[in-house]
Amino acid sequence: MTEFNQPISGNDLARFSGPNTFMRLPQADSLEGLDVAILGVPMDIGTSWRSGTRFGPKEIRAESAMIRPYNMATGAAPFDSLQMADIGDLAINTFSLSDSLRIIQESYAAILDTGVIPVAMGGDHSITLPILRAIAQKHGPVALVHVDAHADVNDEMFGERETHGTVFRRAYEEGLLVADKVYQIGIRGSGYAATDFTEAQGWGFQQFPAWELYHRSLSGMGGEIRRDIGSRPVYVTYDIDSLDPAFAPGTGTPEIGGLTTPQAMELIRELKGLNIVGCDLVEVSPPYDTSGNTALTAANLLYELLCVLPGVTAR
Amino acid sequence: MTEFNQPISGNDLARFSGPNTFMRLPQADSLEGLDVAILGVPMDIGTSWRSGTRFGPKEIRAESAMIRPYNMATGAAPFDSLQMADIGDLAINTFSLSDSLRIIQESYAAILDTGVIPVAMGGDHSITLPILRAIAQKHGPVALVHVDAHADVNDEMFGERETHGTVFRRAYEEGLLVADKVYQIGIRGSGYAATDFTEAQGWGFQQFPAWELYHRSLSGMGGEIRRDIGSRPVYVTYDIDSLDPAFAPGTGTPEIGGLTTPQAMELIRELKGLNIVGCDLVEVSPPYDTSGNTALTAANLLYELLCVLPGVTAR
Amino acid sequence: MTEFNQPISGNDLARFSGPNTFMRLPQADSLEGLDVAILGVPMDIGTSWRSGTRFGPKEIRAESAMIRPYNMATGAAPFDSLQMADIGDLAINTFSLSDSLRIIQESYAAILDTGVIPVAMGGDHSITLPILRAIAQKHGPVALVHVDAHADVNDEMFGERETHGTVFRRAYEEGLLVADKVYQIGIRGSGYAATDFTEAQGWGFQQFPAWELYHRSLSGMGGEIRRDIGSRPVYVTYDIDSLDPAFAPGTGTPEIGGLTTPQAMELIRELKGLNIVGCDLVEVSPPYDTSGNTALTAANLLYELLCVLPGVTAR
Amino acid sequence: MTEFNQPISGNDLARFSGPNTFMRLPQADSLEGLDVAILGVPMDIGTSWRSGTRFGPKEIRAESAMIRPYNMATGAAPFDSLQMADIGDLAINTFSLSDSLRIIQESYAAILDTGVIPVAMGGDHSITLPILRAIAQKHGPVALVHVDAHADVNDEMFGERETHGTVFRRAYEEGLLVADKVYQIGIRGSGYAATDFTEAQGWGFQQFPAWELYHRSLSGMGGEIRRDIGSRPVYVTYDIDSLDPAFAPGTGTPEIGGLTTPQAMELIRELKGLNIVGCDLVEVSPPYDTSGNTALTAANLLYELLCVLPGVTAR
Amino acid sequence: MTEFNQPISGNDLARFSGPNTFMRLPQADSLEGLDVAILGVPMDIGTSWRSGTRFGPKEIRAESAMIRPYNMATGAAPFDSLQMADIGDLAINTFSLSDSLRIIQESYAAILDTGVIPVAMGGDHSITLPILRAIAQKHGPVALVHVDAHADVNDEMFGERETHGTVFRRAYEEGLLVADKVYQIGIRGSGYAATDFTEAQGWGFQQFPAWELYHRSLSGMGGEIRRDIGSRPVYVTYDIDSLDPAFAPGTGTPEIGGLTTPQAMELIRELKGLNIVGCDLVEVSPPYDTSGNTALTAANLLYELLCVLPGVTAR
Amino acid sequence: MTEFNQPISGNDLARFSGPNTFMRLPQADSLEGLDVAILGVPMDIGTSWRSGTRFGPKEIRAESAMIRPYNMATGAAPFDSLQMADIGDLAINTFSLSDSLRIIQESYAAILDTGVIPVAMGGDHSITLPILRAIAQKHGPVALVHVDAHADVNDEMFGERETHGTVFRRAYEEGLLVADKVYQIGIRGSGYAATDFTEAQGWGFQQFPAWELYHRSLSGMGGEIRRDIGSRPVYVTYDIDSLDPAFAPGTGTPEIGGLTTPQAMELIRELKGLNIVGCDLVEVSPPYDTSGNTALTAANLLYELLCVLPGVTAR
Repeated sequence: MTEFNQPISGNDLARFSGPNTFMRLPQADSLEGLDVAILGVPMDIGTSWRSGTRFGPKEIRAESAMIRPYNMATGAAPFDSLQMADIGDLAINTFSLSDSLRIIQESYAAILDTGVIPVAMGGDHSITLPILRAIAQKHGPVALVHVDAHADVNDEMFGERETHGTVFRRAYEEGLLVADKVYQIGIRGSGYAATDFTEAQGWGFQQFPAWELYHRSLSGMGGEIRRDIGSRPVYVTYDIDSLDPAFAPGTGTPEIGGLTTPQAMELIRELKGLNIVGCDLVEVSPPYDTSGNTALTAANLLYELLCVLPGVTAR
Repeated sequence: MTEFNQPISGNDLARFSGPNTFMRLPQADSLEGLDVAILGVPMDIGTSWRSGTRFGPKEIRAESAMIRPYNMATGAAPFDSLQMADIGDLAINTFSLSDSLRIIQESYAAILDTGVIPVAMGGDHSITLPILRAIAQKHGPVALVHVDAHADVNDEMFGERETHGTVFRRAYEEGLLVADKVYQIGIRGSGYAATDFTEAQGWGFQQFPAWELYHRSLSGMGGEIRRDIGSRPVYVTYDIDSLDPAFAPGTGTPEIGGLTTPQAMELIRELKGLNIVGCDLVEVSPPYDTSGNTALTAANLLYELLCVLPGVTAR
Repeated sequence: MTEFNQPISGNDLARFSGPNTFMRLPQADSLEGLDVAILGVPMDIGTSWRSGTRFGPKEIRAESAMIRPYNMATGAAPFDSLQMADIGDLAINTFSLSDSLRIIQESYAAILDTGVIPVAMGGDHSITLPILRAIAQKHGPVALVHVDAHADVNDEMFGERETHGTVFRRAYEEGLLVADKVYQIGIRGSGYAATDFTEAQGWGFQQFPAWELYHRSLSGMGGEIRRDIGSRPVYVTYDIDSLDPAFAPGTGTPEIGGLTTPQAMELIRELKGLNIVGCDLVEVSPPYDTSGNTALTAANLLYELLCVLPGVTAR
Repeated sequence: MTEFNQPISGNDLARFSGPNTFMRLPQADSLEGLDVAILGVPMDIGTSWRSGTRFGPKEIRAESAMIRPYNMATGAAPFDSLQMADIGDLAINTFSLSDSLRIIQESYAAILDTGVIPVAMGGDHSITLPILRAIAQKHGPVALVHVDAHADVNDEMFGERETHGTVFRRAYEEGLLVADKVYQIGIRGSGYAATDFTEAQGWGFQQFPAWELYHRSLSGMGGEIRRDIGSRPVYVTYDIDSLDPAFAPGTGTPEIGGLTTPQAMELIRELKGLNIVGCDLVEVSPPYDTSGNTALTAANLLYELLCVLPGVTAR
Repeated sequence: MTEFNQPISGNDLARFSGPNTFMRLPQADSLEGLDVAILGVPMDIGTSWRSGTRFGPKEIRAESAMIRPYNMATGAAPFDSLQMADIGDLAINTFSLSDSLRIIQESYAAILDTGVIPVAMGGDHSITLPILRAIAQKHGPVALVHVDAHADVNDEMFGERETHGTVFRRAYEEGLLVADKVYQIGIRGSGYAATDFTEAQGWGFQQFPAWELYHRSLSGMGGEIRRDIGSRPVYVTYDIDSLDPAFAPGTGTPEIGGLTTPQAMELIRELKGLNIVGCDLVEVSPPYDTSGNTALTAANLLYELLCVLPGVTAR
Repeated sequence: MTEFNQPISGNDLARFSGPNTFMRLPQADSLEGLDVAILGVPMDIGTSWRSGTRFGPKEIRAESAMIRPYNMATGAAPFDSLQMADIGDLAINTFSLSDSLRIIQESYAAILDTGVIPVAMGGDHSITLPILRAIAQKHGPVALVHVDAHADVNDEMFGERETHGTVFRRAYEEGLLVADKVYQIGIRGSGYAATDFTEAQGWGFQQFPAWELYHRSLSGMGGEIRRDIGSRPVYVTYDIDSLDPAFAPGTGTPEIGGLTTPQAMELIRELKGLNIVGCDLVEVSPPYDTSGNTALTAANLLYELLCVLPGVTAR
């Protein structure tokens, strides 16, 4: 009988001690036997404003030490029925964005080959393009729950076609997504023209601008999205800047007027039942996270994502 | 005729000047003639994650200098009808948690003997156990309004039975509380099992998890609690981590998805009319409060608590 | 045909580069041809608690580099139809409040003479009194949308009649305002007596305390105010401390229980159609803005104000 | 027999507790019986760059809690033979520099009348002009040990003749100083012309630029100054920006290439034996003192100054 | 042939990636085959002023990722000839100082039994007493190189005999040290009486106050100490507060006028050739280390200590 | 007769006001008539540890506002005899290191064509390679004064040959330098082998490790270097991490045991008389510069470099 990996308990070793793995789970050197692999993609060379997300995985792990294994709100117990481990960081090339994207795609292909569900800690959002390429290679086009302040559908930036602002146009063009099952939630801010958002609507993307979501629960919307996706494979990409800077100050391109953490949790909790084939949480920038609470928020949202993975039981 | 102590006015002495007492009230060397004693319990050796609450009273006092005597929202004028003073800090033993708890209990017994209502600035939450022991010795079992991210009903931590995470189990076991008049508001986060919360429900505790309180006023709930308590003596313990980290980043064990300060004020304002026999505000950790605004929030919530003490008049 | 000034695009020059003007608009050395002049009034000697607002304009400009020209939420395109530029900072006398107020008034008189609409970045709130004097000289008494934590209607502070806390009493006394078209939104906190607020109600001021605005959209209220003002000239003064400290920690006299940035944006967006003759955003204090996000918020609110100026078109 | 005031011992009350007075000395409400009065002059409206020194006295007091009564290096025991107390803060007018200078001078005149030696915690350096006026009124022209990055001998700034940059020209012009017994130590940086320094040499001022002091002890120089002053009354004014920003980052106008704290202590220790009639330590700006160590340094230098006051014994 | 553990190279995995072990050495689960064990003792409940050292080991490890294996100044190559690993953190009881000291002693006894040299990352200085107890049990009384701002020879604090301020009196009384081979370097600050230092001189301790060490190299003194110790077993305890706060701001009880990092390195480098049986570096407090550079300094000093361990070769 | 550009005087416009140009010099849109062009190269994608230097030029300019035109120590008056201006930032491609290096080289070629001396504010150190390529194209191989903690002579990093750690090997290989007139000053830290430094010595580079420079003036060494260079064209590249982290905490790859700012100034001042054909100051990382003092130090060192440019007169 499998014994499932458990986070080190705060009663066995003080929480400020022990390995700097996600939730103090065991570090795995191989993927064998794993159902879920949590990994870091420490990179910030795809960002256009404040850098610093290269330290994101390290800080998210540090703050995750506070999280205990059972979800008091939903009853989910993610470590009861799935074998999870922290498999460390991808060995990106910090001097080359294009080379790093290649490395990420190849690393993901290897992970997905084993059937393991990858859960990534970014890094800037440019990491999601090679991830989606590998995901589509494995699963075909997928539905996408994309929570973000920005639509990230630019055509190019400084002549580059692969940056943190062009991810989902490239993914659409390359056929990585089921276009009418793409949900962009929390988008807002300023742009260059209405088409910055509406062109993607023309591709089929369903957009939920932040200003339509204020002052209310996102449970209803989350449920509708879940029902709309049905049994399709779905990838969840969570940009921490979807949250209002009050809730997540430590990020690279903050936009005012964002989601609250209660809304973020309501949304994720409604995703239970979906066939999630991978997810990521990106854009935590520790140099701008003076209290550590953005990394703490990211760690908790990742935990909530673990709680809705297929096969997770509640008690 | 009594002349009631008043905070130094901002027009008499610039707010960044003067004594570092709560709201720049007079410092009292004796309890004689006082109705309310505001005091510091500067301690952090009962905490399990980030330390620093030993500097809590000092910072809360510093930020309280901005508060004026009249409550614009409720009309309460706490310094019109009660004699209040800052009586300084308890002389805890910073090297021994158990000895410090003994000192706190004895100090509180002496304060309560005089009939003065104690209002404490923590310090970590472990201070509330000896306080409740002294309170129960004076008043018998009391109702408890407990606003917190955590239920604090662990049995032990590292083999210790008296820490900031075990307070309310001990208080229940020792019969310090009217169990079905205990209200735990704002609890949330992760744990080890559903029983982390539900066991206390079995004792009679009434729980109001944070996720049931989002996006709405707490005035209604506050009113129901007030009516449920009636004329019983009640103690109010306010852990600043009940608030969302966006509103109170500077605390030792932050949990995302918490209350807002509007909710916190709505709740406290509904407690007017209760027979409050003491209260505390705990877990402000200045090293993590880079803007000072967590201490400012704590100072204001303490002020709101002063405004609902028995005998406070409005105008 | 006029070519309208445009912010430097993030695709032409990386956002962390270029001139430190508002939104990287051109710096103008003369007012000729301008419709709107954005300027700094770097001053903090009128403040009663934390100083630092002297660096406000510099930081607001720095953070404004992230803002793009088109408003995704409203379709406003402020640079399509009005000629705007950053005209730099007023040369205040940092050692004398009274002399600085004189300089501001004279500078504003010169600006208003040309018909240009001035948009100021403070600086503490004392700058608004000389601005209103110049405005009234040009336009006669104006309506006033005043978003703030404080009513700023003290009679004097330390014997001084012109400080950041006395602005609107002086403005009322001097006949600069249409008194029953003054809207004070977000006021709250503690004071000395009910009259701190109600006296101004007696003059005709309409007050919207923060505690009546929680948990809901401000669009409705904004619309009512817009209709009530009608076609009168109106000045908008926005104190960043109207926001809750969670959303705007970097300010001089923070008060808990304030507005949210969604509410702030909802309110401003409803002002479209008014005859706005000038506006300011004050009290950003960079030394207390450790993440830079208060300045970012201020920059965005100024942008939203630009979007509702008369003559701005949408697309 | 007099019992001399003592700081609260760290073994009686934990250092993070107790009153926020200098070194936790008693707060005195009257000057009666005092030999030395330590006081705050919380002001920053005389500064030309970063503000924040209004919070200087509060922070210096907070950090002074670590200092014990006996000087291990020199054997001085300042509380053995002189009656010292913290007499709180002067009630300056935070909206008017000129009025504040008047208040300071009058307050000092009252203190000096009693024969008490005043030891001031600033505040920006403009406080030293009214102090010197009161000192000269009492003692006639005095010698001056002036440790600073700046000579502060401007004629005017923005047309103002009394600011933190004009203090010692005014003092010279008004005959408050024995000009050839003025020692300016640590001056450096950039200016407008050689005369910025040399003009004052023409008045008799003795200047010790920082660049002549690098890499060596200041004991020798301190001894020479002591011998040169002889038995004249001398005032010591210590600007924390005399130190290199590495040692004192939290100040308003930092200049690189300054003194080290070892040098600062060596210098002060050599002043033992002088007829010091007062001293101050100015320009600590807490918002820029992120670690608190600038205030700690200031507190220690003030303690070293107490150790060399006339009448202090060693053991 | 043994293959010696090596730090992960910065060319194999970007330095901001990988395990959070000291210098990214392998984590060892057993002591078998090790020559040197690097471990964390994350504790701050023995401190009397600022807390936070519980996070010291985590931050020292994080900053150590920058260090490469070869010492450019001395040629030492510590990983060429000794088997070293990071063995994680001791499972201290964060609620009880006395219980934690017992755990440390027992853990050290187990480590020393295997012949491994322990190198500890503190934690506050109270950890050194149980370490010395275990060391003396193994090696008999040892020589001690003690670099610190404080002599730590109090008799008791708040009635407690085992705190961070009493370590070396207890060690002396218990016969753990060769008293005349104890070197206290960098001590300074304020105290209660000359005997605070001189009493320990009476026991034989050799003291090198900071003020005798300014402005010069410590190589000479280091060499004399090395020769004086000869071949005796020696323990090195390095309190980061021996450094001036300019060089190490992030510590619990900073004292101005301390050593420089060049001096610290000169001193350690002279210890090469000694029979070092263990060492520690204590009192790094991350909440006060805003730049991370105190942890960086600590990591480098630990590296320098590794470079002078017996058996380390140079090339 | 030429009128030379002057910095805006602090008496004309308060220092916290005005354009964010270097020292508030005029911004120039063309190179015509300039002798010296000060420019920003805002880039951090060539760095291997902490990022953030992309904001370096912006912060250096902000802090430079404190500097006045005349050098009190040396009498240099750089704006008396040379026409200087801030020409803004190069339009690098923030997503591609190789493309950015190409842009820098081309931009420099254009600047050098006009005979203007370029003075760059970095940016990470990788910018210096394309600068040297353009310099050598114009002037032939040059002497190099290279002040740095690191020799930056790696062959490759992650397979990349052009990063902040490979600059001077590439420059040597490409024949851009007069190899025996290269002076590497302040190098230190850890490496992989002695050859990390000594290989470059084999090429002729003259190295001055930090540990040989402690506790003394660098004037002598600076003079020797000046005489050794003679009349050759020389480029000066100044990495802020040459300074000890106490003096320059805000940098990307800090190394303990570095130079002091007095030493830095002594060194630069000795370079007067050299035929300096360009210079840069790199690696200021504002997110890690919490006090702003690293940027202030950088601004002052750049000012000192301006003071020793050919043609600068003293008075």
